[in-house]
Amino acid sequence: MGRLTGGDPSLLRRINSAVVLHALRGADFATLTEVTRVTGLSRPTVEGVVEGLIDAGLVVETAAEEGAARRQGRPARRFRFRAEAGHLLGLEIGPHRVAAVLSDLDGRVLGTTAKDVDETAPADERIERLRTAVADLLRRGGIARSSLRAVGVGSPGIVEADGTVRLGTALPEWTGLPLGERLRRSFKCPVLVENDANTAAVAEHWKGAATEVDDMVFVLAGLSPGAGALIGGRLHRGYGGAAGEIGALHLLGRDVTPETLLSTTDEPLHPLDEQAVAEVFAHAREGDERARQAVERFIQRLVHDVAALVLALDPELVVVGGWAAGLDGVLEPLRRELARYCLRPPRVALSVLGEAAVATGALRLALDHVEEQLFAVEGTVTARR
Amino acid sequence: MGRLTGGDPSLLRRINSAVVLHALRGADFATLTEVTRVTGLSRPTVEGVVEGLIDAGLVVETAAEEGAARRQGRPARRFRFRAEAGHLLGLEIGPHRVAAVLSDLDGRVLGTTAKDVDETAPADERIERLRTAVADLLRRGGIARSSLRAVGVGSPGIVEADGTVRLGTALPEWTGLPLGERLRRSFKCPVLVENDANTAAVAEHWKGAATEVDDMVFVLAGLSPGAGALIGGRLHRGYGGAAGEIGALHLLGRDVTPETLLSTTDEPLHPLDEQAVAEVFAHAREGDERARQAVERFIQRLVHDVAALVLALDPELVVVGGWAAGLDGVLEPLRRELARYCLRPPRVALSVLGEAAVATGALRLALDHVEEQLFAVEGTVTARR
Repeated sequence: MGRLTGGDPSLLRRINSAVVLHALRGADFATLTEVTRVTGLSRPTVEGVVEGLIDAGLVVETAAEEGAARRQGRPARRFRFRAEAGHLLGLEIGPHRVAAVLSDLDGRVLGTTAKDVDETAPADERIERLRTAVADLLRRGGIARSSLRAVGVGSPGIVEADGTVRLGTALPEWTGLPLGERLRRSFKCPVLVENDANTAAVAEHWKGAATEVDDMVFVLAGLSPGAGALIGGRLHRGYGGAAGEIGALHLLGRDVTPETLLSTTDEPLHPLDEQAVAEVFAHAREGDERARQAVERFIQRLVHDVAALVLALDPELVVVGGWAAGLDGVLEPLRRELARYCLRPPRVALSVLGEAAVATGALRLALDHVEEQLFAVEGTVTARR
Repeated sequence: MGRLTGGDPSLLRRINSAVVLHALRGADFATLTEVTRVTGLSRPTVEGVVEGLIDAGLVVETAAEEGAARRQGRPARRFRFRAEAGHLLGLEIGPHRVAAVLSDLDGRVLGTTAKDVDETAPADERIERLRTAVADLLRRGGIARSSLRAVGVGSPGIVEADGTVRLGTALPEWTGLPLGERLRRSFKCPVLVENDANTAAVAEHWKGAATEVDDMVFVLAGLSPGAGALIGGRLHRGYGGAAGEIGALHLLGRDVTPETLLSTTDEPLHPLDEQAVAEVFAHAREGDERARQAVERFIQRLVHDVAALVLALDPELVVVGGWAAGLDGVLEPLRRELARYCLRPPRVALSVLGEAAVATGALRLALDHVEEQLFAVEGTVTARR
């Protein structure tokens, strides 16, 4: 239980600073008069806060010519938020590749990179590939490593709060890996590690298929699908970070492995990779009966997994991503079957961001972290209005 | 984005009133000096607020003798929150019975009642039974209907925000029933209708098996189980109020009806009710092989449903309630199988509240509603500290 009156002067200063920064960030340029009007703060308070923000490198006075309109007489001083005062990284670690995206403090993307990595590569090699990708990206952008304010990482597996991979069967040597700790050696800023389906969900909500939707599930469809969910616009991690790990549902009463499921012969499909599966789908389209049955089995399993999520969570929208989303003929059966089995069927859409989703969501988490530091004060400012 | 300084005087009055009421409610009796100390408000402010609360009937000055300690000289005036200033009802509507629980504004239970109702009873008859139960309960407690401040209701089915049953196959004539509107005719105070598994989850969190747990799932285990989930201590209803309706999962790829599932003959089990099912369980314990197989099938289905929820949500605790919870031998297999299939198995516990869970949770929802009105001001007071 708190109170509104009185209070801690340094807390008030931080709140006022956050309010002014928020106002400046929302406008391209602003005069002190405009900031005073928008924030409701007094002119002396605004002046003091803006001076402090200039000292911190977060705000700069712009030349009057940069402003949109000049009036008669002495032009009013104009200020803007320095989005270039710091930088953020979003990283993806996957079975076949690592990727990185670089942005400024407004989340504006300045560059991206991706590097192939062998699916059998040990953990050290995979992390080294990622480090190389980051170094390349920073060099190309001319960005000093010291300018980084936060790094987000999307990785397969169940990830604990400190960035340790509790369970990660998709990548060699991944279970138990202290991924956060390992990556923190490369960066002086905070490193936030999150499950890849979770970051993808965040990304589609930020700038993908779910920008208007606060209750959504992202299905990273593959051989053993994972999922991320936003509830009320917030990531739902679960008590132990394992929410959405629906892949294990198959194990219940249905012993068929994906290799058997997708086989068109009497032998399990081997190797079980995206190319092999795409071929099965292609054969099915050409009329091959055994391929058609294999595809049917695959889709039924996907439907079952997604239905379990939908029945448990009742989202407004399901976004399907991952490589299976690229296969022709996944979306329509999914829509049809969900409508059949769910009491309140959700909308179903394909990922807009495609393979950029995981790194983009990781970037958003880094941005959230920085915004929380810069713009929020103990929930007071953000919780109100 | 809001601001801390300045502000609306009537808002400040409401905040101060809520703060004082909260302080008084937390103590049995308090002096103005104590309230001043606890709240940090000025003495004149506290005096003004307390006078206003006395006028509103929510606070009363107690005789000095009621206070714990008397000092030398003129004793300080003492005040207390009048929990008897209003009353709340929690109602349950089920297939076989209706039930009601009555409390004061502190949620202290003053009385309960339950009445049998036939599972084939039409909606009008079922609602009439509930009205009779409420009338009996109020009369026995000597409580005027006008004293009710809020009524919570737990009902099977997917319930919309206005209390209309969107889908309710468990009760005759339930789908489409404007249950909230119908019940509002009997009460002048707010009537809040919620899915029964949801209210049961709230109840176990309030005073049952999950008092220490904010991420939990309540499984209302029966022939077609429903579930309610709390995430971060808050009820997760889903976008369309259909979260947790996992019963439909069976339909996917497994066409066996509960009647067939639990049959020990070549004919479906009929009638399919609690007694018939209990007999099957009893026969299984006595060594009947077909009964054993039926029980096995039943438990496997329950495990599958619960696993789907657990994989989707990753709760800390699963509480099993509903009539199936009363059957010997449900809990252990559930625990064992969840540990086998879930990446991070939750704890599993039996409902503590048993058949009181649904009405108790409905009462808690009514209490939440009243507390929000009395003690919270636009999230400001509760969101801080």
